[in-house]
Amino acid sequence: MKSKLIEIRQARWFSNLTTTIIILYALILGFKTSDEIEQSLGNTWFYLDLAITLYFLVEILIKMSAADSLKSFFKDRWNTFDFIIVAVTLIPIQESDFAMVARLLRLFRIMRLFNARPELKRIIDMLIGAIPSIIDIVILMFIIFYMYAIVGSFMFDGLKSGLWDNLLVAMLTLFRVLTFEDWTDVMYEAMEIYPWAWVYFVSFVIIAAFVFFNLFVAVIIGEMEKLREQPIEDELKKEEEKMDALHAEVKALRADIALLIKAKS
Amino acid sequence: MKSKLIEIRQARWFSNLTTTIIILYALILGFKTSDEIEQSLGNTWFYLDLAITLYFLVEILIKMSAADSLKSFFKDRWNTFDFIIVAVTLIPIQESDFAMVARLLRLFRIMRLFNARPELKRIIDMLIGAIPSIIDIVILMFIIFYMYAIVGSFMFDGLKSGLWDNLLVAMLTLFRVLTFEDWTDVMYEAMEIYPWAWVYFVSFVIIAAFVFFNLFVAVIIGEMEKLREQPIEDELKKEEEKMDALHAEVKALRADIALLIKAKS
Amino acid sequence: MKSKLIEIRQARWFSNLTTTIIILYALILGFKTSDEIEQSLGNTWFYLDLAITLYFLVEILIKMSAADSLKSFFKDRWNTFDFIIVAVTLIPIQESDFAMVARLLRLFRIMRLFNARPELKRIIDMLIGAIPSIIDIVILMFIIFYMYAIVGSFMFDGLKSGLWDNLLVAMLTLFRVLTFEDWTDVMYEAMEIYPWAWVYFVSFVIIAAFVFFNLFVAVIIGEMEKLREQPIEDELKKEEEKMDALHAEVKALRADIALLIKAKS
Amino acid sequence: MKSKLIEIRQARWFSNLTTTIIILYALILGFKTSDEIEQSLGNTWFYLDLAITLYFLVEILIKMSAADSLKSFFKDRWNTFDFIIVAVTLIPIQESDFAMVARLLRLFRIMRLFNARPELKRIIDMLIGAIPSIIDIVILMFIIFYMYAIVGSFMFDGLKSGLWDNLLVAMLTLFRVLTFEDWTDVMYEAMEIYPWAWVYFVSFVIIAAFVFFNLFVAVIIGEMEKLREQPIEDELKKEEEKMDALHAEVKALRADIALLIKAKS
Repeated sequence: MKSKLIEIRQARWFSNLTTTIIILYALILGFKTSDEIEQSLGNTWFYLDLAITLYFLVEILIKMSAADSLKSFFKDRWNTFDFIIVAVTLIPIQESDFAMVARLLRLFRIMRLFNARPELKRIIDMLIGAIPSIIDIVILMFIIFYMYAIVGSFMFDGLKSGLWDNLLVAMLTLFRVLTFEDWTDVMYEAMEIYPWAWVYFVSFVIIAAFVFFNLFVAVIIGEMEKLREQPIEDELKKEEEKMDALHAEVKALRADIALLIKAKS
Repeated sequence: MKSKLIEIRQARWFSNLTTTIIILYALILGFKTSDEIEQSLGNTWFYLDLAITLYFLVEILIKMSAADSLKSFFKDRWNTFDFIIVAVTLIPIQESDFAMVARLLRLFRIMRLFNARPELKRIIDMLIGAIPSIIDIVILMFIIFYMYAIVGSFMFDGLKSGLWDNLLVAMLTLFRVLTFEDWTDVMYEAMEIYPWAWVYFVSFVIIAAFVFFNLFVAVIIGEMEKLREQPIEDELKKEEEKMDALHAEVKALRADIALLIKAKS
Repeated sequence: MKSKLIEIRQARWFSNLTTTIIILYALILGFKTSDEIEQSLGNTWFYLDLAITLYFLVEILIKMSAADSLKSFFKDRWNTFDFIIVAVTLIPIQESDFAMVARLLRLFRIMRLFNARPELKRIIDMLIGAIPSIIDIVILMFIIFYMYAIVGSFMFDGLKSGLWDNLLVAMLTLFRVLTFEDWTDVMYEAMEIYPWAWVYFVSFVIIAAFVFFNLFVAVIIGEMEKLREQPIEDELKKEEEKMDALHAEVKALRADIALLIKAKS
Repeated sequence: MKSKLIEIRQARWFSNLTTTIIILYALILGFKTSDEIEQSLGNTWFYLDLAITLYFLVEILIKMSAADSLKSFFKDRWNTFDFIIVAVTLIPIQESDFAMVARLLRLFRIMRLFNARPELKRIIDMLIGAIPSIIDIVILMFIIFYMYAIVGSFMFDGLKSGLWDNLLVAMLTLFRVLTFEDWTDVMYEAMEIYPWAWVYFVSFVIIAAFVFFNLFVAVIIGEMEKLREQPIEDELKKEEEKMDALHAEVKALRADIALLIKAKS
């Protein structure tokens, strides 16, 4: 029985079937955004959704049964990710209040594609792996944002556009300034009351861009360092060992000669 | 006869003539966009176009005849590219419906410049060669776009601007947000109905930019890896071989000495 | 007494307490931007601010007393930075005119977080360290800005938008053009009077972007150079020394053999 | 006499004086953009300008006289650059028509700062040196621009905004799209007539950005290659030579031993 399940789990047709169903599901979710198509689907959608939900349930049960133990199954965080998505979409949410939440959860099923295609899984893992190396710059960025937001929401509070009404809105406005999105509109409005407001904006743009720029360089250099350590230095180590062996050989040779000389005299 | 054709094909004046004619043709196409010049050209244009079409036809026939075989001619994808452009523009399209298609096809003749200048050919080949290394990140980007577009076209469907009316329009809107082009206009409109819509936009900007950023770093690192493998590691390999030869020499020397010692005793 | 102070200064609870108080202080400053919360705080804020000011005063006095000497205390520029912030916020500024300055100074206390978290301190030091390597490009950038600003404020002086009214405003406008922020609005306005104004704008965008782009590449290459010099070249140096030792050994060996040969004959 | 001139030319105070005068001149040109200051200057400006023109003339004459020959003076392109600027501003342009040209020429005098500060000279040389490595990508970019401009000025010719009226304007519009500056405004206008116009714009943005992106990577990699070739490979070459010397030594040693063995038997 179990060997049968393991066979199914490792079968090429099984993973291909799952991938096809996820893509089909994604396409249907896409078409459903058109009101006409949604209405013409009518009940069909209900049964289709049920069928796909059941397939996903059966698929994860097969995978879980085929695993050595539940513990080893959940050790792979991609399995845990799959399990949560399948489990959560099983919860029946009928009430209209949560309809949107239910829809969103169904959407997350598309992300199961990541698990189905190893290349995507690798990229996601790489992206997650890059986070720790930038965490401190993100903290620094947040402190800069926070300080500028306090100054901004205190100084430009009464402006008509309401872009500085409270701290959260001020931070959103600063995020907008960081993306250079119509930032001069924000500045010119502020400059009508405080003619020196440009110092605030230009300094923020320069500091934030400079920090961001260095973040970029730091990440590239960091990746380079990882990359470099492997091939060339391994080679150099190997070469060094060979040279040590050679030196030992020459030393032994010299000892032999010394013996010869001693024997002579 | 054939050796004559090969001589012509390899002649410097022949490739220079082709390049000159393509550039002239590009200039004429440019001037033709001005209505006045187009009218004053009148029939001249018709005969000029005919002459250039004929020249291109003769030129490709010479190249095809000069090749060892048709198969070897089409093996070079740049030749195939040239052939298709010349062949397609021979089709007579008179009816007004397809006039625009005919015009566009003529425009593609300018791209024959790529084949005429080796440096450009190399850059194009390099650009095409860079595609496989980014294909998975493009797929990932598309999944992110697709999921955000479904959420967007479902949540912001009724907005006046019509930026979320269907899935395709929503993806176009998200592409616009990715380029930071007036993205806050889109956000502020959505925030009037859903005050929390900023979470959708800010998260999209950060995730998409972060993925894009890492794509960039990944490509640079990948190119670096290719680069590094050649010069230094070749050098190191060569050095290692020399050291092995040296070691063999020392060993042979030691064997000689051993013989000497044995002979002594 | 002094050893007691040193013990406190190095205690984990002491630095954690300081960090917590700074974060709390930052949160309160954030909440205070909301008018409602500020009013409901009322007098509480006054006493809270007093308490925190006192804590910071006591904390810096402990650190100063625990130092070997005042000189060694101020040698660390982060200590000097802390001292100035604490000292300046002790100055009683009651008058309404300077209320804003007093508020700003209090804000700088958040920056004491940098000193509390070593990772942030390292990033800040790195950022400051990167400045000298870009100073000349900044000077070059400034000269380009200055020259374009003079031309702009002379040619486009009378424009309605007032974007070129004086040199400072013109430089601000050029900074805006550099960030690509609605730069075509500025250009189209100028083109109504000088149809060739696009030469001014397009050349500025291309030159400034090209200089900026090369600045970027130069910084990355510079960082690379620093990085490269250490690991691999150290390794190569070490290897070279080993090879020299080996050579000396072989030479000594040859001298021995020469002795042997001489003894023989 | 000549040795006196050479002494002056190499004197620190002489170059410092020139730098100071250029900076002063730049400041005056800046202040002159303010109408009030220009009027209050009045005749003073005329005499000041005359004095500075004379100083520059004397300075370049000293440099020319101190040079070995006129030929060696003009060999340095920075000297030629200085000479042209000084010579051209000597031409008396009084008529109002050319007043602007005269003003612009005076402005170029600020660029003499580049020659006065070696670091700036080096950066400018570096920037000029980077041009050949990007020339082919610029040609490619131009072909893409040209083809899109022809299509655009043919298809979107009648649009109200007049952004596609002729080829030059269309290229300017595409340059604007490349900088992402309100490019959706251009697109939405076109989409009202051709609903499929988004294909034109999105394809242009993606192709142009992709080419540009690769240009960037190519330049970084090219710089890397230059950088790499020097330090490490030099080191490796040196090491290789040492190893060859060692090998020769061991071979000579073996020949000695062979002699010894022969002598024995």
